[in-house]
Amino acid sequence: MRRVAVIGVGVTKFGKHDRTSGELFAEAAVDALADAELPPGAVQALYYGNVVGGETEHQLHTGPQAASILGIPTVPTTRFETACASSHAAFRHAVMEIAAGVSDVVLVGGGERVLNVPTAESTEYFAYASDASWEQPLGLTFPGVFALVARAHMAKYGTTEEQMAAVAVKNHKHGTMNPKAQFQKEITLETVMKSPYVADPLKLYDCCPFTDGGAAIVLASEDVARPRRRAVWVLGTAAASDSMLLGDKKDLSRVMATERAAKAAYQQAGKSPSDVNVVELHDCFTIAEIVATEGLGLFEPGAGGIAAERGDTSLGGKVPVNPSGGLKSKGHPIGATGAAQIAEIVTQLRGEAGPRQVDGARTGLTHTLGGNTATVLVSLFGRE
Amino acid sequence: MRRVAVIGVGVTKFGKHDRTSGELFAEAAVDALADAELPPGAVQALYYGNVVGGETEHQLHTGPQAASILGIPTVPTTRFETACASSHAAFRHAVMEIAAGVSDVVLVGGGERVLNVPTAESTEYFAYASDASWEQPLGLTFPGVFALVARAHMAKYGTTEEQMAAVAVKNHKHGTMNPKAQFQKEITLETVMKSPYVADPLKLYDCCPFTDGGAAIVLASEDVARPRRRAVWVLGTAAASDSMLLGDKKDLSRVMATERAAKAAYQQAGKSPSDVNVVELHDCFTIAEIVATEGLGLFEPGAGGIAAERGDTSLGGKVPVNPSGGLKSKGHPIGATGAAQIAEIVTQLRGEAGPRQVDGARTGLTHTLGGNTATVLVSLFGRE
Repeated sequence: MRRVAVIGVGVTKFGKHDRTSGELFAEAAVDALADAELPPGAVQALYYGNVVGGETEHQLHTGPQAASILGIPTVPTTRFETACASSHAAFRHAVMEIAAGVSDVVLVGGGERVLNVPTAESTEYFAYASDASWEQPLGLTFPGVFALVARAHMAKYGTTEEQMAAVAVKNHKHGTMNPKAQFQKEITLETVMKSPYVADPLKLYDCCPFTDGGAAIVLASEDVARPRRRAVWVLGTAAASDSMLLGDKKDLSRVMATERAAKAAYQQAGKSPSDVNVVELHDCFTIAEIVATEGLGLFEPGAGGIAAERGDTSLGGKVPVNPSGGLKSKGHPIGATGAAQIAEIVTQLRGEAGPRQVDGARTGLTHTLGGNTATVLVSLFGRE
Repeated sequence: MRRVAVIGVGVTKFGKHDRTSGELFAEAAVDALADAELPPGAVQALYYGNVVGGETEHQLHTGPQAASILGIPTVPTTRFETACASSHAAFRHAVMEIAAGVSDVVLVGGGERVLNVPTAESTEYFAYASDASWEQPLGLTFPGVFALVARAHMAKYGTTEEQMAAVAVKNHKHGTMNPKAQFQKEITLETVMKSPYVADPLKLYDCCPFTDGGAAIVLASEDVARPRRRAVWVLGTAAASDSMLLGDKKDLSRVMATERAAKAAYQQAGKSPSDVNVVELHDCFTIAEIVATEGLGLFEPGAGGIAAERGDTSLGGKVPVNPSGGLKSKGHPIGATGAAQIAEIVTQLRGEAGPRQVDGARTGLTHTLGGNTATVLVSLFGRE
């Protein structure tokens, strides 16, 4: 297999936009191509992630639409949808296109628009990522799913609501250093603890927001990337699945797909958790970050909440998690999230993250979760 | 790049079903795995095509759902959506996974369910594959798109409504020989010509039906496929795109994405149009078959209608097109169509197509189109 590198990244401001998801992606893509110092005409394929475009924009077939908006309508393009992990899935398949020798320069990204519909509607559309026959009829939307995960983790390990709140406080603090973040405002532990319950034990400030946004990255083969000083190499990328039904999972305090994908990605990269200097992971809810830090092997099972409270995952801590602010504070435009996480890690490994820079970061990891913990992708990146 | 072969195929009966798209896919997948003489546990990845699941079934994240229904919930899986070409796109990306050396056995397929909602609703959902900002508001549904294509072809080449009708008559005749086809009934030219206009000049019998169904194929690396006598090799597979907006296309009598994808696929395979013995192509409307036979280089531009009328594309003709009955008679469960076309070509190249067998077929081609002619995939297959 040929080696693959990221040579350009771009992300829109996350938040409310009055543009289509395709237009948001195109803005990010133009920035990513400029960052890569390549014209759009150099792109040989477009890998595009979008989730609820059919529902919120009445738009399917979003791959060629994104390519057309970007002005490269003849480039082969595919839309990938694995719920919130869609553009991370697009990334992994794009790596295979280059690895297989089919292309040398591939544009990857995603866009999503959800703030054009009421919150109750987007909550329903997001729930389409769970099983329509068995779980949707029970009213199991995603705050409910992660409330069950939280209760299981609390029961098994004694994890506290204060520990979950510490994740929110930390990610909001990180978000103040990211000019692209949806929220750039510090919050206190008290603010989180006093916010209303959305799905007990998860409160409003345990939940990431609904977000419009786009993100893009330019991937290149070794020949193209080698002369570029700022290239960041893909060391490993793996996907794993788990049962679609929450009721089929044996232990809700763990995300088995995270553990499987992490194991495969570490193996490909020849790295272990202790090699990782900086992480962007899927904190759709604060408990999701705690469970992910354990599943990725950064902390022992049950130690994730304690680590967050102790500051181990803060900038300056043992292993900074979500320096971008994460989904919680940066925002979560679902189809764009995986690509945005990769953009942040690439920025960190280049040493270009400004006030939120993790000093001396050489190896970074991204983790994106889709649906009822049924899809997870994990990728590892490094400087030479 | 490692060579890739198809070692198993399965297709459900096409028509109306009271099961989910995931269940329909699973039925086809069980048949495909039995055909490949492999247990489900041998599958290393699932590539899944589905288009309007969000709309008709309130189901996104259909990859892991399909894997769960099939009993292999931990297999990495991705949903692909490129409108009606979705499972052909899934197939092409799966070929790259094997070519890159990531996996040796990959299950590819798709499922779709649309007959659980009224026709007016599915027509609207299908239109989501065209641009939501500019074209959907004009009421441009797909019969309208292909009526414009037909008018352009008639104006440029003198193609007649009778020539289009000949495609319908031929494909319905082929469909009588396919026990899986939605319609297994011959029709006359008069029936087509007297049927009501849907979008002038296209009449009811120029249009393919709405269909529920599933299709699956098992792909394998050379090492796995080599000992298998019935393996059919992937000689080439290419995707091409074109402008999303119909108004941006210079000549509606041609499908540029077909021409580009065909050129790339022939080049990969080291074949020319005259080498092709049997074709499954995207006859969503009769005019689409005529334009595709020209775009694939089987006939000169403008000669497709004449060729159809003359019987060149009938079983026993110069180059039989859609021996399965095509989308027109076999049916068009959109997310499953690309995989179903490949299943037919593999069956033909194995010499196992029974009464609809194309004698001595050695090289076959599949062609699948998505949206307003904005996505096309072309693949070539051969026996050793």
